[in-house]
Amino acid sequence: MSTAAPYSPELESLGQSMHALVAELYPICRSITGDGVRETLQRLQRLIPLTVHEVPSGTQVFDWTVPREWNIRDAYVKNSRGERVIDFKKSNLHVLNYSVPVQMRMSLEQLKSHLFTVPDHPDWIPYRTSYYKEAWGFCLSHKQFLELSEDTYEVVIDASLKDGHLTYGELLLPGETADEILISCHVCHPSLANDNLSGVAVASFLARNLSNLPRRFSYRFLFIPGTIGAITWLALNESKAGNIKHGLVLAGVGDAGPLSYKKSRRGDTEIDRAAIHALGQLDSKANAFDFSPYGYDERQYCSPGFNLAVGRLSRTPHGTFPEYHTSADNMNFVHPNSLSESYSACQSLFSILERNRTYLNTNPKCEPQLGKRGLYRVIGGSADSGATELAMLWVLNLSDGEHSLLDIAERARIKFDSIYQVAIALQEHGLLTESLQHSSPNPQKASA
Amino acid sequence: MSTAAPYSPELESLGQSMHALVAELYPICRSITGDGVRETLQRLQRLIPLTVHEVPSGTQVFDWTVPREWNIRDAYVKNSRGERVIDFKKSNLHVLNYSVPVQMRMSLEQLKSHLFTVPDHPDWIPYRTSYYKEAWGFCLSHKQFLELSEDTYEVVIDASLKDGHLTYGELLLPGETADEILISCHVCHPSLANDNLSGVAVASFLARNLSNLPRRFSYRFLFIPGTIGAITWLALNESKAGNIKHGLVLAGVGDAGPLSYKKSRRGDTEIDRAAIHALGQLDSKANAFDFSPYGYDERQYCSPGFNLAVGRLSRTPHGTFPEYHTSADNMNFVHPNSLSESYSACQSLFSILERNRTYLNTNPKCEPQLGKRGLYRVIGGSADSGATELAMLWVLNLSDGEHSLLDIAERARIKFDSIYQVAIALQEHGLLTESLQHSSPNPQKASA
Amino acid sequence: MSTAAPYSPELESLGQSMHALVAELYPICRSITGDGVRETLQRLQRLIPLTVHEVPSGTQVFDWTVPREWNIRDAYVKNSRGERVIDFKKSNLHVLNYSVPVQMRMSLEQLKSHLFTVPDHPDWIPYRTSYYKEAWGFCLSHKQFLELSEDTYEVVIDASLKDGHLTYGELLLPGETADEILISCHVCHPSLANDNLSGVAVASFLARNLSNLPRRFSYRFLFIPGTIGAITWLALNESKAGNIKHGLVLAGVGDAGPLSYKKSRRGDTEIDRAAIHALGQLDSKANAFDFSPYGYDERQYCSPGFNLAVGRLSRTPHGTFPEYHTSADNMNFVHPNSLSESYSACQSLFSILERNRTYLNTNPKCEPQLGKRGLYRVIGGSADSGATELAMLWVLNLSDGEHSLLDIAERARIKFDSIYQVAIALQEHGLLTESLQHSSPNPQKASA
Repeated sequence: MSTAAPYSPELESLGQSMHALVAELYPICRSITGDGVRETLQRLQRLIPLTVHEVPSGTQVFDWTVPREWNIRDAYVKNSRGERVIDFKKSNLHVLNYSVPVQMRMSLEQLKSHLFTVPDHPDWIPYRTSYYKEAWGFCLSHKQFLELSEDTYEVVIDASLKDGHLTYGELLLPGETADEILISCHVCHPSLANDNLSGVAVASFLARNLSNLPRRFSYRFLFIPGTIGAITWLALNESKAGNIKHGLVLAGVGDAGPLSYKKSRRGDTEIDRAAIHALGQLDSKANAFDFSPYGYDERQYCSPGFNLAVGRLSRTPHGTFPEYHTSADNMNFVHPNSLSESYSACQSLFSILERNRTYLNTNPKCEPQLGKRGLYRVIGGSADSGATELAMLWVLNLSDGEHSLLDIAERARIKFDSIYQVAIALQEHGLLTESLQHSSPNPQKASA
Repeated sequence: MSTAAPYSPELESLGQSMHALVAELYPICRSITGDGVRETLQRLQRLIPLTVHEVPSGTQVFDWTVPREWNIRDAYVKNSRGERVIDFKKSNLHVLNYSVPVQMRMSLEQLKSHLFTVPDHPDWIPYRTSYYKEAWGFCLSHKQFLELSEDTYEVVIDASLKDGHLTYGELLLPGETADEILISCHVCHPSLANDNLSGVAVASFLARNLSNLPRRFSYRFLFIPGTIGAITWLALNESKAGNIKHGLVLAGVGDAGPLSYKKSRRGDTEIDRAAIHALGQLDSKANAFDFSPYGYDERQYCSPGFNLAVGRLSRTPHGTFPEYHTSADNMNFVHPNSLSESYSACQSLFSILERNRTYLNTNPKCEPQLGKRGLYRVIGGSADSGATELAMLWVLNLSDGEHSLLDIAERARIKFDSIYQVAIALQEHGLLTESLQHSSPNPQKASA
Repeated sequence: MSTAAPYSPELESLGQSMHALVAELYPICRSITGDGVRETLQRLQRLIPLTVHEVPSGTQVFDWTVPREWNIRDAYVKNSRGERVIDFKKSNLHVLNYSVPVQMRMSLEQLKSHLFTVPDHPDWIPYRTSYYKEAWGFCLSHKQFLELSEDTYEVVIDASLKDGHLTYGELLLPGETADEILISCHVCHPSLANDNLSGVAVASFLARNLSNLPRRFSYRFLFIPGTIGAITWLALNESKAGNIKHGLVLAGVGDAGPLSYKKSRRGDTEIDRAAIHALGQLDSKANAFDFSPYGYDERQYCSPGFNLAVGRLSRTPHGTFPEYHTSADNMNFVHPNSLSESYSACQSLFSILERNRTYLNTNPKCEPQLGKRGLYRVIGGSADSGATELAMLWVLNLSDGEHSLLDIAERARIKFDSIYQVAIALQEHGLLTESLQHSSPNPQKASA
């Protein structure tokens, strides 16, 4: 893995814990509705105090309607000898997700129009869905497919598709202000590890950790079915969207590729810049790419009617690795140290957002005399004046009310942490005062 | 030729027709005034309903005065044996264009100060003019020049320079709006094929084709003598200049070089961006370069008092190929497929301008459900979602009233045609409405 | 040396004169206060009519206090045999600048905590200071240091540190307007040649030359101790800072490296662009770099409360060459032709600022007819229209009141001198008028 993060036993252990959570959730057959999501959220509740919401089928959410709930017990294709040649119990990917119930006999010819394979990777089972059009089908490896002989097959999908609910989990960690950071991940994929149990695991452990830290921002975690879940949340919580100052979708954060950040639609928001700074500090191979309307739930958060400052953290981008949406996105495809590096990246990013302030130099005419305050090397003339001193000079020079600490870090090409540390030191010596901020205090927190 | 335009029998035949038109006009001795221009315009009238304007000598046009009209019947230099050693009848380039009448005898020594050659290309006759200072002269190949022996020469230029008119052709194709696209080419060069019979031919065939098409814009074609013609038109039609929303000078569009677009003085106007997009689609070797005040009539259209959005289409830029302004810019120097590719580039460009609109997503909060409208693949989960779907998502995401279809094509790096096609489909499904446009309706068209 | 400046006997002679001035000033033991600065300024007064200012110790200047005055007569370390093993008379760098008086005996062990060396360059004596914390010390070559044996040493620093003055030199050359160009250099370093006697010499000769030239701008030269001198001047002359339209710190302009310009904090001011243009014309290896708050007195002029348009001219940047702040920054390290090239760069820069104007094309609609005014080649059709004509077209095209001559030079990629020359010619022919300027007339000059 391409990581420059310093080794730490805590991080290594955290990586193992997140990997174990992925493993625990892996066998569950999730979909955009149904008991798989419920079971997943229940297991997460052992870790964090998630609220589970149930939204009835038929609820109108903007242009969409919450679909009927899908549940599945069993599914198989049996040959005339009674052998299960395709068996849901072996892998929940074998069933076209959201298949309507079926029980019939048919020839191979008839069956074939309901079968999906990946000929380029003959050992892998593809993952396919049909949420909004009634259909049924089976996914199988191309090798299996080629072994199917002319026969009369018994096809059974013991599923139900009826009025019920769409289920999602939510956790709000109130902060000093009502301004929110949104962390959103999707929980609708069955046995796929990177997409998106990796995101679920990182989000869960971030929530657990943040709940124990002082927070300027409120943090809202959403564990939702992709697309319909984000649309449902936005439709039912439209008035809250204005509080979301920064947001991050977590998807595909466990594979071996380098960290990658997808910018928000606006492209130059504070979280975009903070993320690029944080990732750059962590991994020289990290990369950032521009917004595109194709991807995960940033599509909804960045739709023109919301246009929120929501980016996405991933590793290898979806659709660019062959394992994507196949059975090869399994436990071997996600790595503890990838998960922990992704976790670290989020922590660094949040930590920048938490600490980013705009200051005013109280002594803006010429430099203040740092030496008399013990802030300066004492013996002058040395060619190497030290990084701390340079950071101090940058903060003093640019603290004119127009530059945040992140602006300064970017312009000075100095890491945010160093800029922040000297800013605190300068503030303690009365050389900086915080420039007026416009965050609203958090009534929820105040009354808590 | 460096072209990526798909082969089409229609385009090939059009290229042949344009080449034939160049060949037909090639022998005529044009200048900035006189019967050569009239004859040229008459021949074009067989193709398109040009209006021919005659502006009297002495007319004041801004800082300039329409000059006296120049016509020539014959010109030669005879040696003492009565042989024409330089003969206008062999090439009209032999006479310094706008030479005053001459009839005299002189020594070689005296003659030499009136002779022009291109020593680097000893077989080529240069093209030289003296419009605004009375002079006479002959142009000849350096080889011819070296063969001239001491002798007494009879020098005759049977020309007239007297009050008359400046002649130009104009064609306005009214559109739905009074907003105009200007296409301007110069018709003042004698037997030079690329400069600018190529431009004349492409403009003529564009006009013929556009006259049969529905047009949002009105199209104004000018066939004018270079510099003084553009100045004359602008001086006499100053009030019309405000209607010109986009403009294109066509010059040197028949040689084998790649397409090149010279940006308007403003540099980022809609036509600049549309031209760069159109040329990029047509030819990966196409290039764009910044405005400079040296060139063809874009100099006048882009003078600071007008500053119109007028760019220029050329192939190899003038002055950068040795054949420029010599007898080597002949029928072999222009190619049917170059002419047809230039024609295609203009058509693509106009087609972008015609179709470029700004839309509003009627469902701006989250994505609309494309599937229920049959606009989406039905079986989900496939890694390849298809170019059409991506184009649709881009149009929906950026149709906030701030982005035109061309803006979207540029940002999405998708060709305009695809963006346009999905926009129409989305509009038909009620997912887009056109954002308010500010074009004035065309009274001329309304009354027609 | 990497110079493209044309050889000129005057410049060569000027380089020799500046080098001789550096040599004359080199032996003087300067500091931020004291007789060394006075003696330096007195010698400069032979060349230019400097006013010498004396600011009392204890004067409050923004966050700083003018320190007590330091003077030194002698200093040495004697071994038990009475030999001076470290001797101020051999090099004034041997004493930690601003050392308090000392007279005591001590062991080598005790002495060592007061000794400074450069182990990487064992023959060089470092330069160290302790202005604002009472200390004493000796600087010596590492070779000398290693030769010191166990012994009882007599340590004497015959210095005084008591109330007195901070001394600086100032010269104002009034111009047609009260708008000022500031030239600032520091005069506080003892025997260091490049840092900053080079700057002192170039500033002095620029002042001498400018005093004999007509000046649109007023020029203010400051010869001041680094940091505290600039702070003192700004504190005592705060109301004058508003007149400073452009400024240049000169530091380290005599070494063999290429010219380098450090931009002002604002980064795109007229002097930044003029300097980059001027240096680019002079030396293809010249480079420009962004502002940083580390450096010389641009730190004070560009502090956020002033934010003046002050850049810095240097050659090899301070701190990036090993000789920096050591005895190796001696007379061999500065070169006459480097000094004269730096001088030329300043002259070119000032000359651009003096001549930069914004014009209006009096004939903005289409090009004016240059030919009838004798401003144009007479025989047309030549491919090479000449650089002068092109410069003329650029000036006419962009003289819309929005573009200064420097803007035009930059956009046209033509050197400022050519742009200026054609602008004057066009103005003389009535084709340009100067656009309204907003400089205040200079009352000081008017009454003179």
